[in-house]
Amino acid sequence: MGRAKKMLSHVLSIRFQAVTSMLSPIQCRHKSLTLENMRQNIVKLEYAVRGPLVMRAAAIENELKKGSNKPFKKVIRANLGDAHAMGQKPITFIRQVLACVTLPELIDKYDFPSDVKQRSNELLDACGGRSVGAYSASYGLEIIRKDVAKYIEERDGHPSKWEDILITAGASMGIKSILGLYSPGNKPDGVMIPIPQYPLYSASLVEFGLEAVGYFLDEDNAWGLDMNELNSALEKSKKTCSVKCIVIINPGNPTGQVLSRENIESVIKFAHENNLLIIADEVYQHNVYAEGSKFHSFKKVLREMGAPYTDEVEVTSFMTISKGYMGECGLRGGWLEIVNMEPAVQAHLYKALSAMLCPTVLGQIATDAVAKPPKQGEPSYDLFNKEKTAVLESLKTRAKMVVDTFNSMEGFKCNAVQGAMYCFPRIQLPPKAIEAAKADGKAADVFYAFALLEETGICVVAGSGFKQRPGTYHFRTTILPQTDVLKEMLNIFQDFHQKFTKKYA
Amino acid sequence: MGRAKKMLSHVLSIRFQAVTSMLSPIQCRHKSLTLENMRQNIVKLEYAVRGPLVMRAAAIENELKKGSNKPFKKVIRANLGDAHAMGQKPITFIRQVLACVTLPELIDKYDFPSDVKQRSNELLDACGGRSVGAYSASYGLEIIRKDVAKYIEERDGHPSKWEDILITAGASMGIKSILGLYSPGNKPDGVMIPIPQYPLYSASLVEFGLEAVGYFLDEDNAWGLDMNELNSALEKSKKTCSVKCIVIINPGNPTGQVLSRENIESVIKFAHENNLLIIADEVYQHNVYAEGSKFHSFKKVLREMGAPYTDEVEVTSFMTISKGYMGECGLRGGWLEIVNMEPAVQAHLYKALSAMLCPTVLGQIATDAVAKPPKQGEPSYDLFNKEKTAVLESLKTRAKMVVDTFNSMEGFKCNAVQGAMYCFPRIQLPPKAIEAAKADGKAADVFYAFALLEETGICVVAGSGFKQRPGTYHFRTTILPQTDVLKEMLNIFQDFHQKFTKKYA
Repeated sequence: MGRAKKMLSHVLSIRFQAVTSMLSPIQCRHKSLTLENMRQNIVKLEYAVRGPLVMRAAAIENELKKGSNKPFKKVIRANLGDAHAMGQKPITFIRQVLACVTLPELIDKYDFPSDVKQRSNELLDACGGRSVGAYSASYGLEIIRKDVAKYIEERDGHPSKWEDILITAGASMGIKSILGLYSPGNKPDGVMIPIPQYPLYSASLVEFGLEAVGYFLDEDNAWGLDMNELNSALEKSKKTCSVKCIVIINPGNPTGQVLSRENIESVIKFAHENNLLIIADEVYQHNVYAEGSKFHSFKKVLREMGAPYTDEVEVTSFMTISKGYMGECGLRGGWLEIVNMEPAVQAHLYKALSAMLCPTVLGQIATDAVAKPPKQGEPSYDLFNKEKTAVLESLKTRAKMVVDTFNSMEGFKCNAVQGAMYCFPRIQLPPKAIEAAKADGKAADVFYAFALLEETGICVVAGSGFKQRPGTYHFRTTILPQTDVLKEMLNIFQDFHQKFTKKYA
Repeated sequence: MGRAKKMLSHVLSIRFQAVTSMLSPIQCRHKSLTLENMRQNIVKLEYAVRGPLVMRAAAIENELKKGSNKPFKKVIRANLGDAHAMGQKPITFIRQVLACVTLPELIDKYDFPSDVKQRSNELLDACGGRSVGAYSASYGLEIIRKDVAKYIEERDGHPSKWEDILITAGASMGIKSILGLYSPGNKPDGVMIPIPQYPLYSASLVEFGLEAVGYFLDEDNAWGLDMNELNSALEKSKKTCSVKCIVIINPGNPTGQVLSRENIESVIKFAHENNLLIIADEVYQHNVYAEGSKFHSFKKVLREMGAPYTDEVEVTSFMTISKGYMGECGLRGGWLEIVNMEPAVQAHLYKALSAMLCPTVLGQIATDAVAKPPKQGEPSYDLFNKEKTAVLESLKTRAKMVVDTFNSMEGFKCNAVQGAMYCFPRIQLPPKAIEAAKADGKAADVFYAFALLEETGICVVAGSGFKQRPGTYHFRTTILPQTDVLKEMLNIFQDFHQKFTKKYA
């Protein structure tokens, strides 16, 4: 909101108080929809990744345009997993197919590789009236659901049914549609979420009136999953809610760990024992960097565990085109695979989705290009592979660079970024900084992140936005700035941190 | 769902009953998420436009591919407002801009008009990293919000603030985000909706636990709004809910009426008197065909009514790129303008939207092309105008053709299609058909629509999906099949109706 609006709001609020003190309620004009009578779950909802700090970053960007006297020239947005915004180039094959289906005259008139033309024609044939402007089914185009099923089969070596795949406008929409199946009420359904977690989960649970049952990841053990912690979190929650579901983010956001196969088996057994559905947030499945780390999908491990797990544990797995090597956040594409869900429940989910029309057809088509990339021998293969490998190799280098730099800084302790796109270092803050934060009405890590932004232009997200063990402080930075910018950013960061600790020594 | 899955579900359900009768609950394995324990609002939700009839239409299409012995060769999908699927061609300017921003090398290498290139560069400059693969703000790109504000100012002759514009992935998403601000509970908030109505409203209200307070449109008076009816519907609802909001669809879906300025003024006065927020569903604002009919936005009328209305009545207005002359359903673009909302409520709405990331950037860019079409004198103007006019003129012709044909058929009575894209005739069904429907467990108009589909391949939506006065029967057909297909469809329809009435005479 602009300053004018805030002032207006303030003035109105004063006027309102003045008027209410003079008039009886019936004569007093007030809005139909107010802070008091609106859905309170929306009021309670918090979303740190795009919260006040990010709004301040945008304001600073505007100030810089107008010629501010800040000691830096640009804001570095290390707060959001937005690769293209940080300079990563799109994968050519994806964009060529999108251009062709958008303006089909290009297929004949422009010099595209033959596999781009062929793919575009196949996808257009699947669209109503051969136009990406026609609605698809609400679950996505059948041809794309089938291509995703094939992708999963090749990834896991186990069958996948296309009828159980839903194409979504990014993973968030899919995740919310599953969380929306649970029941609020006096003793609401509970959903286990990791701490730290991606704040979409905590925000959506508040919105839906469900209870978040947090389980702590083990920072001292590379952010691993500790089964004792899961059991004790579940036990503690039984008084206030009925736990029905567990969220696992693998590779982890914001924590960057990659789960071992054994860890996943333990979670599946835990879910089976306690009759929980697993929400497997696997959007970073392409982003694994550490030696010895490997991505195992919950679906694959489930299939290989045999009875009673294979056919009994309910799993929903989520994927997006916003992350990985493609980073196509703005296109909004992704999918959801459903395993072992009660067919009647699944039917109601499909029905509810149908009331929301379809996810963007262009986003779906980009999703198809990710599920079915060019194969060896096809004209687009070499370039595709070169571009994909370059991005993933560079991310691997940057992951190590960020961790090594932070670990070289006094008061920083940072686990390896085995996967995903973030680093979540723990920082020690001087007691005087904690006091100053308190005086400023801010959590200490938020205070630190604001200072960082104001003095250097670097925008990160404070750990409290993701939740963290009480008394510990963290922040999340992406590893997405291109290498030269990242190096510069880390230098500035080091400098800032030294000054900050000196100031509050 | 496939037949195999249905059978499995049936078998499982029998097995489950058998098992439960033998074992104690603790030994009995059941799903974590079941029909009984899932969110019951999702179970209750109904959505006719894509319901069983449409699923049957898809099944018939598959049968036809495999060589069925049906007496027709294709299904005519007159159930959905999906212009491109029915053969309408995209507007060239929109697609050229989309191709350029998707694959920017085309700007220099392909022969596009200069205004297409210029627009594409401007929009790319507004994207993070000059890529449509970067996230925008959750409310849309600022440049596009500003272009929409200018569109509204030109349309209405009154100011529009870009900060009050949200770019959305189609109108449905925007409408749901406003309905989601209301409170469920023992005495839930009530939302007045027209009967007949677009079923997104009834479905969303069930999903959110809100009460739908229906008001009947006056079929005998060209589906007009009767203020006595509004007052009496509101009065009746007071025992069960607290009415906070009224939905007006103008031009009407499925009913095709265009509200007069006087009618809109009366609604605004009614909303003011009863402290209701107005949801103005104005997605068909370009689709006005009848002589003497004109689209008046609620915003414009509100601004011109003066105090106390202008500054007090809360209005939210919705637009989409799926309808109008462009018909870009698959791209998912649209907007929402907020007028007079309590600033604190608006701030919470913006915050909640930010948790869902952004609407598709390509959909936003298509929205920009609609809000800011080529101007007279610009290279793309002539073609744009020719294409736009051709679509709207053809729709006008088809609107009249459909109404005239239906009114020439015995037992049909059909109001003029003044606007939008649908015809909603009232049909008299023979008592024996009503009995046969009852025996078949179907509403009589659903029975009629199923018979029409099975015998002719024409897919319409039964009136009961939109709600209608008890004892009356209707169906909704779009006017979107291209003229030759539409003529053929109407001939087949006439033939079917004669046979149907003869059969049940």
